Amino acid sequence: MKLSSKNLETRLDTLYDAIVVGGGMGGISAAIYLARYGLKCLIVEKGKGRSFWMQDLRNYVGLDPHTPGRDILKDGTEQAIAWGADHLRGYVEEAIDEGETFAVRVKVGKKDPTGSVFRSKYLIAASGIIDVLPQLDNMQNVYDYAGYTLHVCMICDGFDMWDQKAVLIAGTEGQINAAFVLNWFTPYISVLTHGLCSVSDAMKQKLADHGYPLYEAAIARFLGENHQLSGVELVDGTIVEATTGLVSMGSIYHNQYLKGIQGLEWDGENLITNNMAQTSHPRIFALGDLKQGLNQVSIAVADGTLAATQIWRNIRRASPPRKWEENLLATR
Amino acid sequence: MKLSSKNLETRLDTLYDAIVVGGGMGGISAAIYLARYGLKCLIVEKGKGRSFWMQDLRNYVGLDPHTPGRDILKDGTEQAIAWGADHLRGYVEEAIDEGETFAVRVKVGKKDPTGSVFRSKYLIAASGIIDVLPQLDNMQNVYDYAGYTLHVCMICDGFDMWDQKAVLIAGTEGQINAAFVLNWFTPYISVLTHGLCSVSDAMKQKLADHGYPLYEAAIARFLGENHQLSGVELVDGTIVEATTGLVSMGSIYHNQYLKGIQGLEWDGENLITNNMAQTSHPRIFALGDLKQGLNQVSIAVADGTLAATQIWRNIRRASPPRKWEENLLATR
Repeated sequence: MKLSSKNLETRLDTLYDAIVVGGGMGGISAAIYLARYGLKCLIVEKGKGRSFWMQDLRNYVGLDPHTPGRDILKDGTEQAIAWGADHLRGYVEEAIDEGETFAVRVKVGKKDPTGSVFRSKYLIAASGIIDVLPQLDNMQNVYDYAGYTLHVCMICDGFDMWDQKAVLIAGTEGQINAAFVLNWFTPYISVLTHGLCSVSDAMKQKLADHGYPLYEAAIARFLGENHQLSGVELVDGTIVEATTGLVSMGSIYHNQYLKGIQGLEWDGENLITNNMAQTSHPRIFALGDLKQGLNQVSIAVADGTLAATQIWRNIRRASPPRKWEENLLATR
Repeated sequence: MKLSSKNLETRLDTLYDAIVVGGGMGGISAAIYLARYGLKCLIVEKGKGRSFWMQDLRNYVGLDPHTPGRDILKDGTEQAIAWGADHLRGYVEEAIDEGETFAVRVKVGKKDPTGSVFRSKYLIAASGIIDVLPQLDNMQNVYDYAGYTLHVCMICDGFDMWDQKAVLIAGTEGQINAAFVLNWFTPYISVLTHGLCSVSDAMKQKLADHGYPLYEAAIARFLGENHQLSGVELVDGTIVEATTGLVSMGSIYHNQYLKGIQGLEWDGENLITNNMAQTSHPRIFALGDLKQGLNQVSIAVADGTLAATQIWRNIRRASPPRKWEENLLATR
């Protein structure tokens, strides 16, 4: 059922089998499996996650490669609801481990200062990341290109940058190292720091040895039309020619609500999971970009399968077997 | 490119980066990623694998749940070819580890007694399994229901059996244990052995304790119409009422071509893999149903992502970096 501020109180006494934080591709996959295992689950989706911004999803089998992320999310969410999942648009502020259950506080809409508390046996952390983009006064200028010819994921879109003049936008010296992977796809790389970091002499030398120019002035604006990049203008007036770009400025993790929970093992901002997407906390699972490994839709979707299946196994094994009662009566 | 007996000789001198044995969902995923990493790959597909028979794919995010497997395979194959993969309809008879390369002997068509040999640096085993079905004189009668209301995968289709009268068809006593998982979805289970095994007194008692009748006579035919099961008639004339069924008779593994390769670690018929779908042989990867774990489309698709990405990393790291030569000339 689709929940909102109007009807969510009908579920405040429900003990869900699992609450899925994040309604991206991983969260939807988990919810579809949970619902088809006959388990009660709630997806809480804040909206506008990473896959929402994808203009094409080119390497996920079964889809037309020009399917935009938002269409898949919409269809998948409807499918999960059709199988029996609940879905709520809201922001998870906090998850409290109550021992046997989790209390998950969700802020729904703007008129909800304290939030509503939902309860579940298991928690699936599928809230993902969002890519850091270069900040300009006119952010619309960034959005005009991001997801079209200005990419954030080399595995997803490196192919579409093949042998083109590309800008690599990095916010730290470490992030500049992406140039030495990006050069698999194109050697025509100009490195832009947007004025965010100083670059060591060793890195300058390495870039020069590869023929990759370095520009340390801030970006003034992206140039081009119809989402097709043609260059980048810097604040010092320099114009860097490029028909594509890669933003390598790191990610913001949506994992704050987990930070108060004891017993979770982290690798930086990523959760450590086993081969069933289970974290070191036996009732918390983590999917996709929140866990270690590749940030790919196919991985998040498989993680959702694994997490839901392990939760089903746990719940099933703890439940009494269903007997065919009329036959038992007949033979007694 | 689509290869056939007419044009395959144009590729006999090609050293592929990877040959993907099996063009199901995992193999196609691997090929799409490999092609988009700019790597040369060949899919060899014998046809009519497990996903080809699926009438619906109900739990894979992004697809209309009524999409038949054959449509997805067709679209995915075309997509892989469009990105640059080669595709050949044929049967892999043997793979020989030549040290740095594999020689893969493929039988193409009926007029090809010795087969053609293709070579690659890496091998991706994505040839999967096929479910054993009960053998009747009239197999068409089995195919009329298999994939519709007679299922082979409880995780995929248990939901669609909910609280229905179901037959569980098992070929060994161990396979009868599926009843005690299937009862999560429905308790109205009749167990049929199709005359294939004897059943111990302990198992008979356990089934009786659950109220699940056991029928040990062979199946004469499935009853129903329009793919909708209504019952099963046994050779002794008994009619077992059921609107759905689960076949739990094990699987045939398409892995014979790997049996001569040294250094592969097996768990029964499944290959043991690491978290990048890599087997214990550093140049062989295994996907989906051939490896340990859940036999689900989403898992196979993710495995394809992982295997292709690890192969790309290996090849990339062994390649000289591409430099921007004109800039190097300018600064020298």
